[in-house]
Amino acid sequence: MGAVKKQLKPDYDWENCTLVEYGDSDTVKGISKRILIGEEDGATDFFVRYFNVQPGGNSVYEHHPWVHEVFILRGRGTVLLGDTWHDVEEGDVVFIGTDEQHQLKAAPDEYLGFLCVAARP
Amino acid sequence: MGAVKKQLKPDYDWENCTLVEYGDSDTVKGISKRILIGEEDGATDFFVRYFNVQPGGNSVYEHHPWVHEVFILRGRGTVLLGDTWHDVEEGDVVFIGTDEQHQLKAAPDEYLGFLCVAARP
Repeated sequence: MGAVKKQLKPDYDWENCTLVEYGDSDTVKGISKRILIGEEDGATDFFVRYFNVQPGGNSVYEHHPWVHEVFILRGRGTVLLGDTWHDVEEGDVVFIGTDEQHQLKAAPDEYLGFLCVAARP
Repeated sequence: MGAVKKQLKPDYDWENCTLVEYGDSDTVKGISKRILIGEEDGATDFFVRYFNVQPGGNSVYEHHPWVHEVFILRGRGTVLLGDTWHDVEEGDVVFIGTDEQHQLKAAPDEYLGFLCVAARP
């Protein structure tokens, strides 16, 4: 059955979500994931995750067969699609296609927070 | 290939999105849909739509086999899940399960805007 998960204001955190911290490495820095709608909620085909990137941090530089559907919830940064960087800020929408090389970076002086829907929790 | 769609601030509108206006009837009132990520963007399995509900308006009272994964972007209202109404506001997350009866209503004095991911554009 369905459920409501309240945001734990004033933070970007939510009730009953699973937190995943990524360690820093050559390709990822200062990022965490919260699974807002995952398998435990009853979702099976696509999942809503919230990623928080610290100022100056970045998501993994990667490509894979599944797409990403992204909504920027917080802050400002840049998104790599293929070989082109695009500026993004709160409210913008990003589609990342099948096998498209991609990465998201927060601005040096600001957080970047985004929802990312994918066929992976 | 992927793409960025900028939000057309200060409105809740976006570049290159398809607008669908619903007419008012016994079961739906004061609501419109913007397809933020649809088939034209390359999406095939799940789609990101933004619904804007005017103060006092409501989405369709319905149930169906596909799920909804919802993020409240704007305002305040109530969500029906099965036979129970829940208060929601900006930042909250809602999962609507398979065949679950549901409806979203804006507060009488405030807009309700939400992202809804579904296997329908």
